[in-house]
Amino acid sequence: MNCRTDLALERQELLKEGEYSGVKVEKWKIENACVTQIEITDKNGEAAIGKPMGKYITVDLPEFSHESELLDGRLTALTETVKELLPKGAKNVLVAGLGNESITPDALGPMCAKQIFATRHIEENTAKELGLPSLNPVAAVSTGVLGQTGIETAEYIKGIAGLVRPDAVIIVDALASRRLSRLGKTVQLSDTGITPGSGVGNARAKIDESTIGVPVVAIGVPTVVDGATIVYDLTDGENKNENISREAGSMMVTPREIDTVISRAAKLLALSINCALQPQLEPELFLSLK
Amino acid sequence: MNCRTDLALERQELLKEGEYSGVKVEKWKIENACVTQIEITDKNGEAAIGKPMGKYITVDLPEFSHESELLDGRLTALTETVKELLPKGAKNVLVAGLGNESITPDALGPMCAKQIFATRHIEENTAKELGLPSLNPVAAVSTGVLGQTGIETAEYIKGIAGLVRPDAVIIVDALASRRLSRLGKTVQLSDTGITPGSGVGNARAKIDESTIGVPVVAIGVPTVVDGATIVYDLTDGENKNENISREAGSMMVTPREIDTVISRAAKLLALSINCALQPQLEPELFLSLK
Amino acid sequence: MNCRTDLALERQELLKEGEYSGVKVEKWKIENACVTQIEITDKNGEAAIGKPMGKYITVDLPEFSHESELLDGRLTALTETVKELLPKGAKNVLVAGLGNESITPDALGPMCAKQIFATRHIEENTAKELGLPSLNPVAAVSTGVLGQTGIETAEYIKGIAGLVRPDAVIIVDALASRRLSRLGKTVQLSDTGITPGSGVGNARAKIDESTIGVPVVAIGVPTVVDGATIVYDLTDGENKNENISREAGSMMVTPREIDTVISRAAKLLALSINCALQPQLEPELFLSLK
Amino acid sequence: MNCRTDLALERQELLKEGEYSGVKVEKWKIENACVTQIEITDKNGEAAIGKPMGKYITVDLPEFSHESELLDGRLTALTETVKELLPKGAKNVLVAGLGNESITPDALGPMCAKQIFATRHIEENTAKELGLPSLNPVAAVSTGVLGQTGIETAEYIKGIAGLVRPDAVIIVDALASRRLSRLGKTVQLSDTGITPGSGVGNARAKIDESTIGVPVVAIGVPTVVDGATIVYDLTDGENKNENISREAGSMMVTPREIDTVISRAAKLLALSINCALQPQLEPELFLSLK
Repeated sequence: MNCRTDLALERQELLKEGEYSGVKVEKWKIENACVTQIEITDKNGEAAIGKPMGKYITVDLPEFSHESELLDGRLTALTETVKELLPKGAKNVLVAGLGNESITPDALGPMCAKQIFATRHIEENTAKELGLPSLNPVAAVSTGVLGQTGIETAEYIKGIAGLVRPDAVIIVDALASRRLSRLGKTVQLSDTGITPGSGVGNARAKIDESTIGVPVVAIGVPTVVDGATIVYDLTDGENKNENISREAGSMMVTPREIDTVISRAAKLLALSINCALQPQLEPELFLSLK
Repeated sequence: MNCRTDLALERQELLKEGEYSGVKVEKWKIENACVTQIEITDKNGEAAIGKPMGKYITVDLPEFSHESELLDGRLTALTETVKELLPKGAKNVLVAGLGNESITPDALGPMCAKQIFATRHIEENTAKELGLPSLNPVAAVSTGVLGQTGIETAEYIKGIAGLVRPDAVIIVDALASRRLSRLGKTVQLSDTGITPGSGVGNARAKIDESTIGVPVVAIGVPTVVDGATIVYDLTDGENKNENISREAGSMMVTPREIDTVISRAAKLLALSINCALQPQLEPELFLSLK
Repeated sequence: MNCRTDLALERQELLKEGEYSGVKVEKWKIENACVTQIEITDKNGEAAIGKPMGKYITVDLPEFSHESELLDGRLTALTETVKELLPKGAKNVLVAGLGNESITPDALGPMCAKQIFATRHIEENTAKELGLPSLNPVAAVSTGVLGQTGIETAEYIKGIAGLVRPDAVIIVDALASRRLSRLGKTVQLSDTGITPGSGVGNARAKIDESTIGVPVVAIGVPTVVDGATIVYDLTDGENKNENISREAGSMMVTPREIDTVISRAAKLLALSINCALQPQLEPELFLSLK
Repeated sequence: MNCRTDLALERQELLKEGEYSGVKVEKWKIENACVTQIEITDKNGEAAIGKPMGKYITVDLPEFSHESELLDGRLTALTETVKELLPKGAKNVLVAGLGNESITPDALGPMCAKQIFATRHIEENTAKELGLPSLNPVAAVSTGVLGQTGIETAEYIKGIAGLVRPDAVIIVDALASRRLSRLGKTVQLSDTGITPGSGVGNARAKIDESTIGVPVVAIGVPTVVDGATIVYDLTDGENKNENISREAGSMMVTPREIDTVISRAAKLLALSINCALQPQLEPELFLSLK
């Protein structure tokens, strides 16, 4: 496949109807948001989509917009989806922001992690003194990237999870999309974890229940289109100019306002995760946190 | 012209040989750097290239590289070119960084301006006490962008220049290129100032001797390829998909490592300008400035 | 005077009652905020307080708090005070943020200026298309500091004002206070402009109607206590240890959470100024601006 | 003790000569740098100094200065001390930056960690292709702070160390000093790890061989004086004004140029650690890293 995308939805769109099995597609609406669920139910589905069995839910948003509008239907749609994908009764959760903070389109994970309401260290008494109800214990970390830390992201999370002993892990990461029109306007949530460089057989890198030991919910927003993908799509795969292909491979296409896109998306995801993990608190409370 | 580029060199490359006049092209080397000068000598040349009469010098660099390598041939090539384009005997110079600091690929100008050695306020005595020779009076500002300030860049510079009364102005700005291969690897220097949105007839925006009152040297590095340009080039102008064209128009293509590209380019340009404006000082001195 | 403070209120507190004239003190409340006005009415008052004739209004705030609380009484108190100090009928206003963006406690001015709603370039038609009423023309700049720009702040503002031709200038700057308890909890607003390094006789630096040509409203928040001041106060001026005094002079005392203090104060001031300059718009609109 | 300091040297200075045992003090010079070693050899020494047995080496530097001067004697002094404190033959090392990145005086650890040359993931072959000799495997992380992560720093490091299995851990943190004159001009290195809030009996927080499982070298630079300490010192402990004491307790005293102090100190420490961990490489190589 000459087209790089992290969205199950886009992989499914590339398939011809009727020629594959093991993939169930459903669509619905939550308030203003369109929701599409791709469920991969068997090995055939895995082969067709190129991703492991599980649910991949895409929430399409009108657009990540002004802060004052965060509390409209988008928040509900995302919060409900996060709750649905977490294992029943999960209270103790570790949130991990993936990606490189100093490369803007890759900074979604770290920026989101900073806005997670970490509560694992807050004792019952302290919460009571602050006038808060009982809190679910949440921890939040940024894993950095291999080139900075020398540690595989999967190992990093496994190390932290070994001590925190959460019921589930939520990972947040920037994604690549095939379509310019999806950049900053779509959230993919899945209960399968992720396999960075999937298909390449680098099992060490996989971040899922098999490596971490507890269920892993993955949440991401497409922030770039790969240069090579756009060349492929624009030329119907018939670009013969190898120079352009090579150059394009080290380029990325982003919206002009990428800095704003990332900061709004990070805020919305953090808010959704905070609301899903502490359903007893009002959303407005999280807005007033740093 | 469906192809957006700020490089005179790329506009000239689009022309067919022998079918235009008023344009002189010369190439030479300064140490490791390839230098191409496009000189537009008359109205015919202006019409062919779509830029005002003057010299446009492009310095191609192996790659903006590690700090420790700043003192190789690239610095010499750029410093010499800056000196050549400044009016003879210009000592009192205002350097203005253009662009939006909070959009990474547009932050070249402000990041460069911060590294200019501002000396206009340093009195002869103070310099002497610091063990420095006599300094040429240099001022440095960042103009912000219209949406942030409510002030046209040309007006902003004119206002400051009205008080500083420099012999010349140097403006530094991020450019758009047509070729991915030039991003972060080329510097264009000209003695003509710039006309943002040139061809659109917005005379108010022009930043040159006619609006500012003193010669204006423009220095820039291409940091993005316009989405529409890449679509046009890849499809030989035959893309019929209007959706893709519209979307592409609001996208930009940048190198993956754009944050590093910008910070290295800003450092190199600032160093070149500092060396050109204070030729009596050692380059190492500027490296030790914050 | 061995005690550095930029607050007229603190200078007045140092005086002995009944031993000076030309200073009128009034106090009142606007919603939750305590307001004290020191009015210097003649030369005697100028000599007693060490500041030029005019009004100095101090608004004491419970504490700069969470974003969600921005719309309580504090905003009203500040907005009303800004309106009162501006010349009647001033519509065209230039807002200038003073200070050094890269020194946290000095970054109040630049951070505030970035959040000013710049409208000078928005034409009547454009506003109408955006569904906005007619806008007063506002421009916003950051002046940087002398060491970075080589340009005195007063000159910088004069240069810009020469082109923008505003009815009034508002300058925003971080202040020094004498009391730790006032850091980040007080706003001083005056109609007198400011004289950086006042008393030192550096007339060039004065930023007021006499140098800029239009009335200058100055707004600031104390963010540091000078090291020397705290030594003086703690020892009742009887510290004999010259080493400590010298060292202390290059130190500053700030709240531990200075980064938060600055970002909240910048937001509150920007909001107040935006509301005062565009009274026809709802405050919520400004919150949704970046 | 009413005086907060993290420097063993300052605690020893507070003791009266001849009235304590179990503490050995030695001084020497490495090039331009003055080195003082406080060695605590038994329980008496622990009680006297209030810190666990081990070596505390303080390197006094003329001043953290320009980048171009990084390669003078200071680097040698620090590199040699790091090597001496690491267990013999330690090759596989985890470097952890402690502290809060978004509070300037506390950002030393995270800023240093970003500049550590992480090599653990670089295979022998890859190094060879890059023209590098064999590399010692180094990992680098930032632990964040409890309020952000919900995870104690000691737990965080233990979790990562459980997977990385290093021979030793190096932790880097900003310190509190008693003396203004030491801010940004002193480095303390010890082979004892650290106990945040030592004396408070919070054993969970201890970061040393007993909790992490391998030797822990702690490196820090004083960046603040506690407000309460300066009040105490200035008034010879006789301040009776409780208001001032309370306020001062939430304040900190920093050099005016704290942003520069932190960035230079982070660079110097990272360079020293890189040189100590990869002695087969030239120092200049690390300067050219990001």
